[in-house]
Amino acid sequence: MDQKLILHEYTQSGNCYKIRLTAALLGLPLQRREYDIMKGETRTPEFLADVNANGRIPVLQIGDRFLPESNAACFYLADGSHLIPSDRFDRADMLRWMFFEQYNHEPNVATLRFWLGFVGEQNLNDSQRDQIGIKRAAGEAALKLMDKHLATRDWFVGDSLTLADIALYAYTHVAEDGGFNLEQYPALDRWLSRVAAQPSYIPIA
Amino acid sequence: MDQKLILHEYTQSGNCYKIRLTAALLGLPLQRREYDIMKGETRTPEFLADVNANGRIPVLQIGDRFLPESNAACFYLADGSHLIPSDRFDRADMLRWMFFEQYNHEPNVATLRFWLGFVGEQNLNDSQRDQIGIKRAAGEAALKLMDKHLATRDWFVGDSLTLADIALYAYTHVAEDGGFNLEQYPALDRWLSRVAAQPSYIPIA
Repeated sequence: MDQKLILHEYTQSGNCYKIRLTAALLGLPLQRREYDIMKGETRTPEFLADVNANGRIPVLQIGDRFLPESNAACFYLADGSHLIPSDRFDRADMLRWMFFEQYNHEPNVATLRFWLGFVGEQNLNDSQRDQIGIKRAAGEAALKLMDKHLATRDWFVGDSLTLADIALYAYTHVAEDGGFNLEQYPALDRWLSRVAAQPSYIPIA
Repeated sequence: MDQKLILHEYTQSGNCYKIRLTAALLGLPLQRREYDIMKGETRTPEFLADVNANGRIPVLQIGDRFLPESNAACFYLADGSHLIPSDRFDRADMLRWMFFEQYNHEPNVATLRFWLGFVGEQNLNDSQRDQIGIKRAAGEAALKLMDKHLATRDWFVGDSLTLADIALYAYTHVAEDGGFNLEQYPALDRWLSRVAAQPSYIPIA
């Protein structure tokens, strides 16, 4: 990588951690710039104009170009490396799990962690409180599907760790912050240990 | 493509249409198998065991392997073609818009189309009815962001149509079924015409 990499982030966000973990496993140096999302620092006019019009972190800055969306940033870093399968079906199947993560997992598992572990249940509005049950059920369904998939294999795709594992690991390994009980998912639990045992692994914080 | 391609789908779904449009633009033959999601045909024990444990369409079948998630299926079909940029940043930036589509666009624009245009407002439950306002605002924000992005360019990424355009086109061009007014987004409107004017373009139904 000949251009400087800067991660615009909020350390505790699993979406930001995915990118740090990908960079760590690839040995890529990453500068970091922290924004306090609890204080609205990603919704300022400057952030919207210069970093991401969508008002969200993470954003990976590559030289003078900006790349939002955590899984796209991981793909950029890992493109051409062993973290992306060279087989055509497996490469698409890796993306399948990454889209599953953003559609079925993150809006439930990560949102409940944010609401219950960071904002605090007493500070939620009525609409958020009404959605806890729906998000709990959908989050459990996502974790159950993952557990079943992992019952007969070590990694989500193929025979080694890929970006699919990194994307799904980020919020799964801290799901208990959102009130999920991982003990009921034994295959998932073994997979979490397998990821954490990778050389060059780094923790979320 | 030397293996038979079968699309397990529900014709009216924009997610299924993405895959048909990608195949059409690439000249790839696709067999189709229809499931009536209004009758729960993707939640039967057979479908969950044989096609997709996540109980959703579309699923692209490639020989005897099954690939869920619309954007992953499009990536599989287009891998190595002109619909995916050869430049590393642009390739990741294309995925950035595809993840944006599944996270910020589809859960709002597509869900309101399904609820209001297919299920019917009078048949929604209280929780769904409570979420209409939130999804309306989030859908408008996604469309506004797209309109702003397209004000200075013809395509989402680079100088030609990519999978990012296909993914975002699918539910945007039928957003009025969900009560969105596209007249307020002139750049978006011109882009919709540009996609529909592509050689080999096919309509949703």
